Amino acid sequence: MFPRPNRKPGVPYSDFPVDEMGNKSEMITHGTPSRYSFVIEGLDGYWAHVERCNSNRDKRKDYLPFIAGQGLHVGFIHPKFAEELKRFPGIFTFSGDKAKGQMVQLNRTLITEKDCTASVEGVMQILANEGKIHSWRNEKYPVVTSFGSPSLFWLERACVPYLGTKAYHTHLNGYTIVDGEMFLWVSIRGDSKMHQDFPGKYDHLVAGGQPVNLTPKENILRYAQARANMPSDMAEKAIPVRTISYEQIDDQKMKRDVIFCYDLEVPYFWQPKNNDGEIDSFKIMRVTEVAKIIRSSTGSYKANSALVVIDFLYRHGFINPNEHGYLELQQSLQQGENE
Amino acid sequence: MFPRPNRKPGVPYSDFPVDEMGNKSEMITHGTPSRYSFVIEGLDGYWAHVERCNSNRDKRKDYLPFIAGQGLHVGFIHPKFAEELKRFPGIFTFSGDKAKGQMVQLNRTLITEKDCTASVEGVMQILANEGKIHSWRNEKYPVVTSFGSPSLFWLERACVPYLGTKAYHTHLNGYTIVDGEMFLWVSIRGDSKMHQDFPGKYDHLVAGGQPVNLTPKENILRYAQARANMPSDMAEKAIPVRTISYEQIDDQKMKRDVIFCYDLEVPYFWQPKNNDGEIDSFKIMRVTEVAKIIRSSTGSYKANSALVVIDFLYRHGFINPNEHGYLELQQSLQQGENE
Repeated sequence: MFPRPNRKPGVPYSDFPVDEMGNKSEMITHGTPSRYSFVIEGLDGYWAHVERCNSNRDKRKDYLPFIAGQGLHVGFIHPKFAEELKRFPGIFTFSGDKAKGQMVQLNRTLITEKDCTASVEGVMQILANEGKIHSWRNEKYPVVTSFGSPSLFWLERACVPYLGTKAYHTHLNGYTIVDGEMFLWVSIRGDSKMHQDFPGKYDHLVAGGQPVNLTPKENILRYAQARANMPSDMAEKAIPVRTISYEQIDDQKMKRDVIFCYDLEVPYFWQPKNNDGEIDSFKIMRVTEVAKIIRSSTGSYKANSALVVIDFLYRHGFINPNEHGYLELQQSLQQGENE
Repeated sequence: MFPRPNRKPGVPYSDFPVDEMGNKSEMITHGTPSRYSFVIEGLDGYWAHVERCNSNRDKRKDYLPFIAGQGLHVGFIHPKFAEELKRFPGIFTFSGDKAKGQMVQLNRTLITEKDCTASVEGVMQILANEGKIHSWRNEKYPVVTSFGSPSLFWLERACVPYLGTKAYHTHLNGYTIVDGEMFLWVSIRGDSKMHQDFPGKYDHLVAGGQPVNLTPKENILRYAQARANMPSDMAEKAIPVRTISYEQIDDQKMKRDVIFCYDLEVPYFWQPKNNDGEIDSFKIMRVTEVAKIIRSSTGSYKANSALVVIDFLYRHGFINPNEHGYLELQQSLQQGENE
């Protein structure tokens, strides 16, 4: 019974006592029934984003464990992608028995981080040239078993989901309070650049992947400047508040992401301005309005950023314990390996 | 691999690559090594509270499932305590096969919430008179499978851990900001009353169990008045921020608690005053000072309240992602069935 996957709201309703005739008995709750029953629809809208970010998780069992270093399990590889790696036996080896199943291993002759990085990079570039890896970014992520543990090698960002290694991100909620009401800055993503994901979607004021050799705070400072022209003494005040995580399986890719969430109250007179071409425009909206957009549409908001906003809504009291499924939705924000 | 129990910080250090001679290789992290390595001790102090609240969880397997209603699993009962219940076959029945194991069931002839409540109450009072249940409170908790789902019956608070049913609580972090620095109100619990738990310990400004027919917010209002003489228009502004959960097994008792955490910024000139005799005195302290007390001593703070403060430290940036074990400690605050 424990631990177990997160339940969706609404599921507890199947707990209604049922009499011999199959009729459900009246609901008795901690409060009056009406306080719970009218708000289910609202949380359902949030769940759509959670489900998008945690899609196809039942397919995890089809993936082969990816082992590096001295037997450390660092990733998951789809059997089809593993077939491609078999062409490079000096770099990837295959082993397995019937009991444990097959697995992919980084060749044990590769010892140092530098050697591992260079060897894997070579293979990945060949596969990218053959059109088997898309959206090369020229950005390196460390391959680790948990955040802050030593990185076994560095891996181009585009390759991370193909080897199913962990990825860390840093997102910033930029809010301001006017006349006691809370407003959130959102960015609208551009669609001009080749590697641009999620064109035209709403996103955070500042968000980005967590590359090698930067702490989350340093990463915030870097992205705040590039994305929103935020001076570093302002970005410096960003507060680390919580993390969310998810696991997403899509075709031959497995994303295992953890996002460090930051909050920053910005002066109400401050205006962001994009410097790196990723963002088309910025908009300041009532938090309640942002919540409404996220609840009512899964398409208009970048999916993982929507989860960060849901976490923000929780931490600032915009989602209420009286709403049915309050606990389940909150728990669902950390479905990945949060470490 | 997923889901799995929370790992302690420090465990990732065993991930150091080891060479043929058994020497650990240099640590490579997302930042410079020094940013991680100096702060491990600090988070270790917080873990002591997490471990206290989640003690003896390996003994869960010894407990018998407790079933009520139409086959709903609502609790866990220790075999020794179950022996006592065998004396009341009209109320508790026992069933089980070799595959599923034994379980305790509320007699199916008891249909309504009222009948179940009265029957169980009768048994529990007999056992309390025999000295087998302690600290009777005359406070009723609903027996539910998840928060907001229909309650199957009401159960005296003192009996909840004996039947291992879920319990919900509401805790309030009362803070104030003076010259840009954050202060937290703490209460020091009295030791005069017979049923008084945790005498002399630091606790929240306001905290209490979540009884039947009150929403968490109504519960805050009630306790805020009784514990801290807080006017309702002030308490009304408390913001629901997050929940924590834990599971604690102790002798024949299993606690499965979920705490609704609230934050309230109180005016700096406001002074709390206890009305119900549970609290000896109040103290306002720098948040950093409270954090230091919690880190350095497990004995001086009420254990579950310490977890709520750790959650507060996370949400307000007093615990930093650069600290090794940041993710694991955060995850550990929701080890119970958070639903």
